[in-house]
Amino acid sequence: MSELLSKAPFTGRAARLLASPDRKSGLEKAEREALVLRFSGIEGDCHGGLIRKSDSRMVKQYKRGTTVRNTRQLSILSTEELAEIARSMGIPDVRAEWVGANLVTAGIPDLTLLPPSTRLQFPSGAMIVVDIENLPCRYPAAIIERQHPEQTMGFVKAAKHKRGVVGWVEAEGEIRVGDAITVWLPPQRLYAHA
Amino acid sequence: MSELLSKAPFTGRAARLLASPDRKSGLEKAEREALVLRFSGIEGDCHGGLIRKSDSRMVKQYKRGTTVRNTRQLSILSTEELAEIARSMGIPDVRAEWVGANLVTAGIPDLTLLPPSTRLQFPSGAMIVVDIENLPCRYPAAIIERQHPEQTMGFVKAAKHKRGVVGWVEAEGEIRVGDAITVWLPPQRLYAHA
Repeated sequence: MSELLSKAPFTGRAARLLASPDRKSGLEKAEREALVLRFSGIEGDCHGGLIRKSDSRMVKQYKRGTTVRNTRQLSILSTEELAEIARSMGIPDVRAEWVGANLVTAGIPDLTLLPPSTRLQFPSGAMIVVDIENLPCRYPAAIIERQHPEQTMGFVKAAKHKRGVVGWVEAEGEIRVGDAITVWLPPQRLYAHA
Repeated sequence: MSELLSKAPFTGRAARLLASPDRKSGLEKAEREALVLRFSGIEGDCHGGLIRKSDSRMVKQYKRGTTVRNTRQLSILSTEELAEIARSMGIPDVRAEWVGANLVTAGIPDLTLLPPSTRLQFPSGAMIVVDIENLPCRYPAAIIERQHPEQTMGFVKAAKHKRGVVGWVEAEGEIRVGDAITVWLPPQRLYAHA
């Protein structure tokens, strides 16, 4: 694949890392200094697994509950896009904990618009593959509304194309807060027959 | 993911299926009426596995021999592009066996240019995710040269952007010769910061 991948002209940084050991607490996650990435996802995170049951996001492709490969092992958002969402909503901040983030980046422009199959590489050798943009859902909206009933725009609208991406682990390793992130982009072109 | 995926305005077809039980025979594969796709790849094919050792294609990202997820479980080429390659080379045909294909499609225009993260869906529910374009390598070139010493253009040049894609299994199931292939395309856009 990778003679086809080109290094982006910027380097990102791991600004925050989060994990949640169980789903009881909903989307909210706990801060970590480091995460260990395995082929099955984040060690000790409840969204791990090589496979998962398909959900409402995939009803056009799969009957709900179909066993599929887990391409949502990590939820990745950017500091810059979270700040833009907060600004649109008229609130001081949108915290990574509220939106289910595992990795919050800094320095990757328009993170949500990274092409599918982009690779994010860490100093340990750990590599995350971007599957696709994450769609804003109503769960963060409810959490944020509890915190900020005064908001001027709803989360789902404000977060459109700013809600980050989901991805999975291509190579194992530890990732740490402050790590540089090398971004490998696939060839850029539009498919003429869409 | 999949509210983001849109159905392509054409339907493909599985024209040929091939597998090779071992690597001793090189790239050359045997015809099959059906293949069983597992999360680990094609059942009984030597390129299966959830993980593999990185190779020369990935030296910019990985030290050779690093254990990585196997995104090359299947090699997919199209009838139309194989015919174009043969025409460029001035030979009657380029056989799927010579180029290591597992699936030869018909009816998917510019197969090699399908965007990464495109999904190929089969009637059984089996789903293949396109990782990325496959680069022409010298192994098929050698096979073809033995068959057609009279060729007018080398395979590597003739096959540029026509050598198909590699992919991995998102949902298990059987695929059969003649199956319709529904193509699900990710959002089309260029990343502005490449």
